[in-house]
Amino acid sequence: MSYLGYLRCLRCGTKVAAGAGYGGCPDCAAAGVNVNALPAYDLSGVDDLIPVDRSQRGIFRYRRLLPLSGGDPVVSLGEGGTPLLPVPRLGAALGVPRLYLKDETRNPTWSYKDRLAAVAISRAVADGAETVVVATTGNHGAAVAAYAAAAGLRCVVLTLESVPQTMKTLMQVYGAEVVALRAAPERWQLMAEAVRERGWVPMSGYRNPPVGSNPFGVDGYKTIAYELVEQLGTAPDVVVVPTAYADGLAGIGRGFDDLRELGVIGRAPRLVAAESFGPYSDALASGAELGGPVPAGPTVAFSIGSPFGTYQGLAALRGSDGVGVAVPDDSEILDHQALVGRTEGLYLENASVVAVAAAGKLAHAGQLGPQETVVVIGSSTGLKDVGATAARLPAVPVIAPDLASLDAALGTVTR
Amino acid sequence: MSYLGYLRCLRCGTKVAAGAGYGGCPDCAAAGVNVNALPAYDLSGVDDLIPVDRSQRGIFRYRRLLPLSGGDPVVSLGEGGTPLLPVPRLGAALGVPRLYLKDETRNPTWSYKDRLAAVAISRAVADGAETVVVATTGNHGAAVAAYAAAAGLRCVVLTLESVPQTMKTLMQVYGAEVVALRAAPERWQLMAEAVRERGWVPMSGYRNPPVGSNPFGVDGYKTIAYELVEQLGTAPDVVVVPTAYADGLAGIGRGFDDLRELGVIGRAPRLVAAESFGPYSDALASGAELGGPVPAGPTVAFSIGSPFGTYQGLAALRGSDGVGVAVPDDSEILDHQALVGRTEGLYLENASVVAVAAAGKLAHAGQLGPQETVVVIGSSTGLKDVGATAARLPAVPVIAPDLASLDAALGTVTR
Repeated sequence: MSYLGYLRCLRCGTKVAAGAGYGGCPDCAAAGVNVNALPAYDLSGVDDLIPVDRSQRGIFRYRRLLPLSGGDPVVSLGEGGTPLLPVPRLGAALGVPRLYLKDETRNPTWSYKDRLAAVAISRAVADGAETVVVATTGNHGAAVAAYAAAAGLRCVVLTLESVPQTMKTLMQVYGAEVVALRAAPERWQLMAEAVRERGWVPMSGYRNPPVGSNPFGVDGYKTIAYELVEQLGTAPDVVVVPTAYADGLAGIGRGFDDLRELGVIGRAPRLVAAESFGPYSDALASGAELGGPVPAGPTVAFSIGSPFGTYQGLAALRGSDGVGVAVPDDSEILDHQALVGRTEGLYLENASVVAVAAAGKLAHAGQLGPQETVVVIGSSTGLKDVGATAARLPAVPVIAPDLASLDAALGTVTR
Repeated sequence: MSYLGYLRCLRCGTKVAAGAGYGGCPDCAAAGVNVNALPAYDLSGVDDLIPVDRSQRGIFRYRRLLPLSGGDPVVSLGEGGTPLLPVPRLGAALGVPRLYLKDETRNPTWSYKDRLAAVAISRAVADGAETVVVATTGNHGAAVAAYAAAAGLRCVVLTLESVPQTMKTLMQVYGAEVVALRAAPERWQLMAEAVRERGWVPMSGYRNPPVGSNPFGVDGYKTIAYELVEQLGTAPDVVVVPTAYADGLAGIGRGFDDLRELGVIGRAPRLVAAESFGPYSDALASGAELGGPVPAGPTVAFSIGSPFGTYQGLAALRGSDGVGVAVPDDSEILDHQALVGRTEGLYLENASVVAVAAAGKLAHAGQLGPQETVVVIGSSTGLKDVGATAARLPAVPVIAPDLASLDAALGTVTR
């Protein structure tokens, strides 16, 4: 057997009923600490990493290690199974010789949130949900909206007025009902009310301070760890993850924990939280149970521009000898976005670029050995916010159709 | 053995030296008909569809059926291997019960042009190229720019002033030198001059009337046919392809031809050219060797908004008992884009949506049997032109954080 049908608090170990656990552990919340409760498993019947059923699509190859019971249907758009690309030219530029990029832009809505949404929506369908609700700056909402459409569920999205139009359009095109609020805490307050009064199933977190997302969805990210070990033939030494509330970081860490428990790998990699403003690095330095709030402002990496660090994220970092690396500077981020594009032919969202820059910072600080294999999670595509990229590029000149005009123009477009 | 190291004219069968064949068959051009010459193979040593080397990434699993010689290095970003998604709700809405979507948005630059670029750039590297040049409305240029970056080649892009900013940015971020011209024929004229005077290697066509693209790149699309047969276990009955100069259509047709020659399949599917203004359907009706020019104008499906139909496209249609289906109406296209989004959770570029709409038109006209398996090629992501989608959607309302405000707003956002 595998998923036990309930959640367990990451902090106090209390068993929490699956439905009651969307907002985290009630006991710890009563004690003043907001903490996620995540699915509990019994892996004693799982012999190895071999997928149970090769006829399953996407991440559901690993369904015995996901929070699903035997007969549960799954909602899949063929997520996961993304390439792990060696990026040696980028690695040379950053001082990280053995650098790989996990290209999560290759998912159905072009971000790794699809792994979360596929599991969270599958669980919601199995539990008889009719309406799901999500508070999101974009990628998360787009993924949930797409999977809700594929499942035939109603989807209400609470976003922020400030998110780029592309993100809003993307969520709307999947048929979700999208409204905006002026500040992140307002979304959580409204969402908590809708969950309580309407019985809508939450696809993201809604506590303040935040605990992380839908607990089933978090375990969708476990599949990244499984794929990395299959792709490399062993565990990498370091995995760098763009991090806000750390669903991805925590889920990936839990996946490696599974593989260790199963005896597939000996040692789990060090996890690195690539963050905008530093709540994780601060809390690791101070020993605090929760990160932040730290001073925060606008950032081109808006997907991860959070003042908070969650318990689940800090637990994953502490359990793996990991660190947080802050990259608050827009110019530094956009320079790295262009570097990734011209050296490797990859166009990453700025939140993902923060993870690239963080790897470079670690190398520069002497915190990466030259033989260490480092994986950066390229969590989403640059197409989600083209405006930020375009603002730094020269205008495309309009020319007459002759070689002299072409030569003259080419002198102006080389960066 | 496999690739013979030269091209063969599709019309007269003349053997054309590989380098000399970038502009098509010289003999036919001299006779007044612009025609592509495409790579010649000897499949007698190939026993079946099994990839030669499973350690190869992406489409290069099939490298023995691609225009590469034994020692040629390949440039890969992990293209291909895209999911074939059953889309039953969309199929029901269109009257096509057994409908599948080949999700080509899951490629490295989020379009199926990556298959072309991977092969064309690999061939260029093997041939010692230093600079490549491409005339493009976007997807093609983005793909070529990305693979040129990955290969360390210089890339010059000749685009149109009218293409969306997203497309221009995408090409620039990969480090290409991008300039715009005012009209498509101007690009071809300038490109022909650059190819002749500078020795730059062409990644797209540059003849007028057009013949199609880089001949090696065309064969990159053969891999779609191989994947479809692997995924379905047999050939589909019908494949609908968004079509301008028909690189994709011709390449897919050539892939099925290979499989027939190898005995893997008995009968190749009927190919359908989904087009904006009808040069293919016109030429099939009249028996003309080349399609168009037909009256053309702006279309939201700008990637395929061509007045011309190529010889290679018409040959593929005629050889497979295929048809052309024109979808010129912007409203019809955008309605179908929204339909695909809300029924299946997929966001396709409008050129791809033309193929969806074309499948519906064929069903409506009684040209598809209810038992026929129909595959639509979802060639690129809707993210490439979000503006066209956004223009048809309601504005996202900004609300106060209470349920009453939410209820009031939700009444306005349901479409």
